[in-house]
Amino acid sequence: MLIEDRLKELRDKINERVPSGIRVTEVEFEGPELVIYTDDPKRFADEADLIRVLARDLRKRIVVRPTILEDPEKAANEIRAVVPDSSGITDIFFDADTGEVLIEAEKPGVVIGKNGITLREITKHIGWTPKVVRTPPIESSTVKQVRQYLRSVNEERKTFLRTIGRRIHRDIPGRDETNKDAPRKDQWVRVTTLGCCREVGRAAFLLTTPDSRVLIDCGEKPDNAGGTPYLYVPEIHPLAQLDAVVLTHAHLDHCALIPLLYKYGYEGPVYSTPPTRDLSAMLQLDYLDVINKEDRKIPYSSNEVKTYIRHSITLNYGSVTDIAPDIKLTFHNAGHILGSAIAHFHIGDGLYNIAFTGDFNYSKSRLFNPAINQFPRLEALFMESTYGGSNDFQPARSDAELKLYETINKVLSRGGKVIIPAFAVGRSQEVMLALEEGMRLGKIPHVKIYLDGMIREATAIHTTYPEYLNNDLRNLIFREGMNPFLAECFQQVDSSELREKVINGDPCVIISTSGMLNGGPVMEYLLNLAEDEKNALVFVGYQADGTQGRRIQKGWREVPLGRKGTITINLEIDTIDGFSGHSDRRQLMNYIGQIQPRPEKIFCIHGDENNTIDLASSIYKRYHIQTHSPMNLETYRMV
Amino acid sequence: MLIEDRLKELRDKINERVPSGIRVTEVEFEGPELVIYTDDPKRFADEADLIRVLARDLRKRIVVRPTILEDPEKAANEIRAVVPDSSGITDIFFDADTGEVLIEAEKPGVVIGKNGITLREITKHIGWTPKVVRTPPIESSTVKQVRQYLRSVNEERKTFLRTIGRRIHRDIPGRDETNKDAPRKDQWVRVTTLGCCREVGRAAFLLTTPDSRVLIDCGEKPDNAGGTPYLYVPEIHPLAQLDAVVLTHAHLDHCALIPLLYKYGYEGPVYSTPPTRDLSAMLQLDYLDVINKEDRKIPYSSNEVKTYIRHSITLNYGSVTDIAPDIKLTFHNAGHILGSAIAHFHIGDGLYNIAFTGDFNYSKSRLFNPAINQFPRLEALFMESTYGGSNDFQPARSDAELKLYETINKVLSRGGKVIIPAFAVGRSQEVMLALEEGMRLGKIPHVKIYLDGMIREATAIHTTYPEYLNNDLRNLIFREGMNPFLAECFQQVDSSELREKVINGDPCVIISTSGMLNGGPVMEYLLNLAEDEKNALVFVGYQADGTQGRRIQKGWREVPLGRKGTITINLEIDTIDGFSGHSDRRQLMNYIGQIQPRPEKIFCIHGDENNTIDLASSIYKRYHIQTHSPMNLETYRMV
Ligand SMILES: [Zn+2]
Ligand SMILES: [Zn+2]
Ligand SMILES: [Zn+2]
Ligand SMILES: [Zn+2]
Ligand SMILES: [Zn+2]
Repeated sequence: MLIEDRLKELRDKINERVPSGIRVTEVEFEGPELVIYTDDPKRFADEADLIRVLARDLRKRIVVRPTILEDPEKAANEIRAVVPDSSGITDIFFDADTGEVLIEAEKPGVVIGKNGITLREITKHIGWTPKVVRTPPIESSTVKQVRQYLRSVNEERKTFLRTIGRRIHRDIPGRDETNKDAPRKDQWVRVTTLGCCREVGRAAFLLTTPDSRVLIDCGEKPDNAGGTPYLYVPEIHPLAQLDAVVLTHAHLDHCALIPLLYKYGYEGPVYSTPPTRDLSAMLQLDYLDVINKEDRKIPYSSNEVKTYIRHSITLNYGSVTDIAPDIKLTFHNAGHILGSAIAHFHIGDGLYNIAFTGDFNYSKSRLFNPAINQFPRLEALFMESTYGGSNDFQPARSDAELKLYETINKVLSRGGKVIIPAFAVGRSQEVMLALEEGMRLGKIPHVKIYLDGMIREATAIHTTYPEYLNNDLRNLIFREGMNPFLAECFQQVDSSELREKVINGDPCVIISTSGMLNGGPVMEYLLNLAEDEKNALVFVGYQADGTQGRRIQKGWREVPLGRKGTITINLEIDTIDGFSGHSDRRQLMNYIGQIQPRPEKIFCIHGDENNTIDLASSIYKRYHIQTHSPMNLETYRMV
Repeated sequence: MLIEDRLKELRDKINERVPSGIRVTEVEFEGPELVIYTDDPKRFADEADLIRVLARDLRKRIVVRPTILEDPEKAANEIRAVVPDSSGITDIFFDADTGEVLIEAEKPGVVIGKNGITLREITKHIGWTPKVVRTPPIESSTVKQVRQYLRSVNEERKTFLRTIGRRIHRDIPGRDETNKDAPRKDQWVRVTTLGCCREVGRAAFLLTTPDSRVLIDCGEKPDNAGGTPYLYVPEIHPLAQLDAVVLTHAHLDHCALIPLLYKYGYEGPVYSTPPTRDLSAMLQLDYLDVINKEDRKIPYSSNEVKTYIRHSITLNYGSVTDIAPDIKLTFHNAGHILGSAIAHFHIGDGLYNIAFTGDFNYSKSRLFNPAINQFPRLEALFMESTYGGSNDFQPARSDAELKLYETINKVLSRGGKVIIPAFAVGRSQEVMLALEEGMRLGKIPHVKIYLDGMIREATAIHTTYPEYLNNDLRNLIFREGMNPFLAECFQQVDSSELREKVINGDPCVIISTSGMLNGGPVMEYLLNLAEDEKNALVFVGYQADGTQGRRIQKGWREVPLGRKGTITINLEIDTIDGFSGHSDRRQLMNYIGQIQPRPEKIFCIHGDENNTIDLASSIYKRYHIQTHSPMNLETYRMV
């Protein structure tokens, strides 16, 4: 069936169900959604169940938009008139692209009203679909810029979403069961490993069916060798024929090279959660900055980051979404960093289900709930194995925190400084929360905790998306009004003068990027503080093979830094396990032990060679599930 | 280094070694050979060791050609003047394409002379490189046509060979070890399965490195569903970028779709042994004919068969040949059918060695020596598993022959006819040899043995290439002058009148194609003889899943034949195992038991699902070699 015919059929079905008098002017696929345009958005909104029923019967995600949108200024006034002042509205953004108006308020509940009554009232008055968010306690310039940019490319994005919508709902040959003459269609599902197998870094997996091609992640290898996924092999070309890129989370080993895809001809969407979109843009820009400072060749420019944002489509956890004619995507909480997701794919009409964990944490952390391991269906699982080795047991978080407190007390009391290299996103916030509590409860002295790199900005993004934090932290911030991230002990370092002052100043704690010492401001601290044995370098995160972090952790005492010379390492080197955003060996095994349903096949990836092999064989022995430890550049048939 | 620079370097080295006075006019890559053009081919030929030394030092296959070739008519006269009359020259073909003159003679030894003295004399006189072949006892129209066609496209072929020669010897990035700034080159070897996994048919394997891509076989699936390899997946595209197609042998499940590659944009060479080239062209044309008669859509026309022949490059067993910048190919006897080869690939500079057995027979047959299993090096082996099941033991050939004699005696004595469906190539000749001997030794009565389909022509091609038969048979034909293929009991059926006479005539034996009853003249016999229970249908070869042969063998008594109606099966159905051109289970295991060197990995392919899995697990258990039973559409990393 041609797409026009399908839309006509949908329009007819919608008209049948819509009460007479409500005029539907247009029905259109936009991205993964079916958009109903109507002259009567008010009456549509009045029919509280109508959209839900249509969505269920048509098996589509449905959005209703007014044919003509009210003037934003006038609409803003109407919103302020309808919503009680006690809501504390701080901003109103009109997004003509989606026909949504984003209402930022200190008390979103008041804007929404009981059972959504105020919200429906707003819709009736202004046509725009209201979306209410809580005013973030720390303003994020990234989030602001992303939103501004998206508004500035309204028209282009509208065209893009319609193009993608029509591609997603295109006919596939042999789909039409009534046409027996159609060529017999092969049925298969394949995964090609383009990186991140028997190694940590450059995650990239290609999921293909006879009709569709989806790339999951596209990261860099954090070993300073500029390692990229195997994007030159024919399996992934032409990039223009990829249906979708799905991003599990914002760490650079998963997202760094996504903008590059647009340079090489990709024109489709990148699906991620909203926080992942913002965090990844921030980290990509920082990545370009770091490379630039090191005089390495940058793989793409900030223009490609913009192009990526322009093509981004965000989905929240649990929303089942068509991303290709025969593939539905659902994100589930992965517990690893803000917005991190397990990507679950339902392929064909019940043909096959496969999930990619990305990085995940199966224990509850200070920031997040544990990773999800309950799925409607699941035949194959690609799971990370960072701590998959048989001895990779991590201490409990509380023990790790005690050890961190001890180390800090020891170093500070001898007049030294503590350098903690950390990923800007995730690890930094975990350590910040631990240190803030430690200081508040008097377990460590009141010294300054300097944050260098993108850490503060990353923290701001955390507070923009409170629904992605776990309940305890959300309550602490919003109910009890005690936002630990705003504690006065934290100070952002945002100039080289201040950095110099920190280096030459009093004993303190420095949390700085990058987390594996492959560039970033932490190198500046190390260069200046490494020779003094009073100081300490405290690793709180995984150090991948080939990084400076791994070398120093292994005991190197002379570390060459290219044209910056060589660092002589005299300061104390500590590794404190237990802050990881990853599951340790026990949790990885438990995750599989408790997973529902039990998959037929498990592929252990994202771990050193020994770890993936060990985890694969242990899962097979314990649970009798077929496992693989694939190599890069292999293709596995799922069905 | 640019190709021109490399050629200049080679020219300099050659000039250093060539005695002064011999002028080298040009040095050029042509296909896999390095061709030295000289004004003095006579003096070059006098220096008996020169070419051998150059080949060894330059590590190239070297051919010397005169800059200007003598007029063919004049040259033919000179040949006849030099060669003694007793040689019995039957034809002289000049192939301007290669600068070779093919001298067909009843006694080739006389043309060659003691230690090649007469041959060198010829070279000195005429410039053309003489190649001496024995006059085939049965003239093959295929061989004649192929040779005529190749002569008619001389000029185009010359250009083609130079293009290929330059492609084979092109620079590959990162090859230059002196250039440290060159991007670090990934090293990997992969095999992608495009067909023939957990099934018999549509063989197609893609061998790739970062620099080169080689397709091994491209066959059809003999199940009447028009099954083709998965040529639509991106791994193999664009076809124009394939470096080479390597054909193991002429059976349609390995070669049927090679001409199709040219229709879809392939422009490179197909490497095979000379008999495989001729047999495959014959079978491809017959294949088109059969499809056409059945009103199915033909996948390509005879033009593409010509294109294939125009792009064919033949190699004899044992000749180590560059086919890509980093890949050398060597064919070894596979013992399966005439010209059948195991394709051995040496990749990189000692990086990896991998062999594809094609179909092979590890026992000596009436026609061939057993398959080779000694290689200079070998890390991975893709082996056929047709009879890989744990119970797939075949009786000894002598027992099979006895059973065949018994069956024939029984059927003939009750006045019935014996129909033996057989592949035109291989099985037919084995059965012919057994029947001829049986009749000669009085083990079966003297009746006519009718050959229908391409059998006689296939037999003619066998006698064109006596060096590909085993010693016993060669001696019988040439030394003892008793060519069993010429026995008077055999009669070719070449008209529908004769076919009708056979059907209505006296008791007899009919050997006819196709071997699995998926089309061909055998269907005509079956249609007319199946209802009479006096007759018998005797299977002497493997019947693949999905073929009519398999259905009848399994006991179907009503066989639908499309618009030709339905055959009711009343005639006797027999299966006589033991004539197979394949190794049985015991021989497959012995082949691996005795292989040298022991490979690290074995992939069991070309067998039903159970058989490949069973063989893979048995080899692993017995020999502790890592084995796989891959599925179609997978990619395995070798290194
Ligand atoms: Zn991560
Ligand atoms: Zn990761
Ligand atoms: Zn392509
Ligand atoms: Zn064969
Ligand atoms: Zn075969």
